[in-house]
Amino acid sequence: MFAAAACSSLLAEIRARKPLVHNITNYVVMNNTANALLALGASPAMVHANEEVGEFVTLSAAVVINIGTLSPAWVTAMHTAAEAAAGRGIPWVLDPVGAGATAYRTTTAAALARHRPACIRGNASEIMVLAGATAEKTRGVESSRGSGDALEAARQLARSTGAVVAVTGAIDYVTDGPQLISLANGHPLMARVTGLGCTATALVGAALAVEPDRMTAVAAGLSFLALAGEIAAEKSPGPGSLQLHLLDALHQLDAPTIARRLKVLP
Amino acid sequence: MFAAAACSSLLAEIRARKPLVHNITNYVVMNNTANALLALGASPAMVHANEEVGEFVTLSAAVVINIGTLSPAWVTAMHTAAEAAAGRGIPWVLDPVGAGATAYRTTTAAALARHRPACIRGNASEIMVLAGATAEKTRGVESSRGSGDALEAARQLARSTGAVVAVTGAIDYVTDGPQLISLANGHPLMARVTGLGCTATALVGAALAVEPDRMTAVAAGLSFLALAGEIAAEKSPGPGSLQLHLLDALHQLDAPTIARRLKVLP
Amino acid sequence: MFAAAACSSLLAEIRARKPLVHNITNYVVMNNTANALLALGASPAMVHANEEVGEFVTLSAAVVINIGTLSPAWVTAMHTAAEAAAGRGIPWVLDPVGAGATAYRTTTAAALARHRPACIRGNASEIMVLAGATAEKTRGVESSRGSGDALEAARQLARSTGAVVAVTGAIDYVTDGPQLISLANGHPLMARVTGLGCTATALVGAALAVEPDRMTAVAAGLSFLALAGEIAAEKSPGPGSLQLHLLDALHQLDAPTIARRLKVLP
Repeated sequence: MFAAAACSSLLAEIRARKPLVHNITNYVVMNNTANALLALGASPAMVHANEEVGEFVTLSAAVVINIGTLSPAWVTAMHTAAEAAAGRGIPWVLDPVGAGATAYRTTTAAALARHRPACIRGNASEIMVLAGATAEKTRGVESSRGSGDALEAARQLARSTGAVVAVTGAIDYVTDGPQLISLANGHPLMARVTGLGCTATALVGAALAVEPDRMTAVAAGLSFLALAGEIAAEKSPGPGSLQLHLLDALHQLDAPTIARRLKVLP
Repeated sequence: MFAAAACSSLLAEIRARKPLVHNITNYVVMNNTANALLALGASPAMVHANEEVGEFVTLSAAVVINIGTLSPAWVTAMHTAAEAAAGRGIPWVLDPVGAGATAYRTTTAAALARHRPACIRGNASEIMVLAGATAEKTRGVESSRGSGDALEAARQLARSTGAVVAVTGAIDYVTDGPQLISLANGHPLMARVTGLGCTATALVGAALAVEPDRMTAVAAGLSFLALAGEIAAEKSPGPGSLQLHLLDALHQLDAPTIARRLKVLP
Repeated sequence: MFAAAACSSLLAEIRARKPLVHNITNYVVMNNTANALLALGASPAMVHANEEVGEFVTLSAAVVINIGTLSPAWVTAMHTAAEAAAGRGIPWVLDPVGAGATAYRTTTAAALARHRPACIRGNASEIMVLAGATAEKTRGVESSRGSGDALEAARQLARSTGAVVAVTGAIDYVTDGPQLISLANGHPLMARVTGLGCTATALVGAALAVEPDRMTAVAAGLSFLALAGEIAAEKSPGPGSLQLHLLDALHQLDAPTIARRLKVLP
């Protein structure tokens, strides 16, 4: 179902169309997210004031909402943007960073998930919490569980929200409930760089901006990051080098590289 | 009029005086902006609360106001800072990021421009919108127009605000109405790194902090970034490397390099 | 008293326990701080809303509060977090960025210092202002004084607050009043990268999370950064390269390197 050819043609499409991706994301990753979108070929914007988010959504080809550094004014704007996007059929992606760590995060993520996101991407803990599959306390913003542990929760969450759900980890899973794509690219050193999950979410936004088949788009967005990350990690003595090489690799990513490296599990 | 010698002596002046440049700028570029100012030899500070901006302006040699990520409390502080700077004769620079994309941005940028900025720097779309020369919708935060398209608008905006106006793009233009400087340094890969326009604005702030001739200061500030960017791009396989080399190149920039590379168009 | 063996075993402890370090820090350095904590082996989180900070503190092994980019809502949350941490015996560190530059900063830093921080880390100007030892105006966020000038102020501040006080500069000093550790690692190029003082404070947080002897923990946290910084600077033509190599060096830091390089002054 998902394979290198689809991934490559989607990348070509992003580079041809340079879709405007509107991000309401956290302070920690804003710069990296913008740079990753630019390196891939999309056009990022970070706009968060309730005074303008609704209007800005109408210019955008996709919207990314990430709850990494919440506060009340931002939550209000997130709802405005999610509603505006859903109402106009603009795909939007939810990243429920740290859902389960505090009541504020869990409640906010759950409320946003009701605005018909095209995709929800999280780590295992976040997806399990959001699916109501666990009462476990999330340990900060890192997951204490492997992505495979959240597979049933992901299917459930996809069914209850209508979103394609992605659980990322050593294996990345993408599901709409019945269907499942399992992806095996990436590198452990990526976990030593902050916000690469957030970057994955943003690249999924770029992919959804140009591709109506959501399973394909989400798998492609995650693959762009996982491929660039593993290429970068192979030449990096540490997480500082990895960040630099990752942006270079996104910029240089091409069809032959995708064909040679993409690992879709059966 | 503007040439390598003036550019080099201005750089020497920045390194000797280490002017304190007060930035009220967007979340995306704060870190890069601060690092670019430090690499050049200036002393950056990021201070945005209305509770302290007025007092902080009095310590500063220049103020930079960038509307990239707006919200009401920040807009209030921007007005306080701009008024305080103008009132004391401290040069301040306006970067109207995304003016034209939303009514909120256009209105805010236009209102700030009334506080007698020493310089306004933007891309073609932003300057055209601010000059009232177009009713076109800005496409997110990137310009849909070449810098040359905004030349007339830039002259008009300079006359109506009293600011030196800079339009950056493949060619960078600097005008105070009657006079014009055209600069041809830079590299296309720079457009694949977020916020280099914002960085240019900040370096213009550092230049205005030490040089009363505003045409010279603005041209020098833009040239520092364009020169460092093209040096960096020549050794960079992608935008990740470019960011690193750009800071190194700002740190290493010297008179012989400026003399050899600076391209001022006739 | 403090020596390489203690420093190395504390590093091993951080890597084994991966303590969750809760940061309320400034916008400029959030990304770097998170990456430095990850590179060292800790688990960072950036959480600032008053709606959740109290709850998040209870999950954390240490809390870092940095006033670099203040605003009223953040100040409220800083007090909530500091009180919650002190009340539960969770060590917390105060970084009084720019204390002395504005009344707002000086007042906020002084008020936070009353919540029994385990450590206060600042440059000479900040520590002197906080100790009430000077009426001098801080010049922006950089110190106009050498760290040695603040030694008496540091001892006084330690006695009045109960905190271990660190003054960083060419020499880093750590004191609890009677005792003093003087550290001589680092490199001048580090001053050309924004927020390395803030990063030092965050690494002190990670060290306090695993080590009850506060003099040892603070000295170790500062040493991690100074050692990684000097290793990085030796191979860096400028501050862009330094940032990358610094994260790689934190990731690769090991007992032999610490034993070979650590300079504790008698």
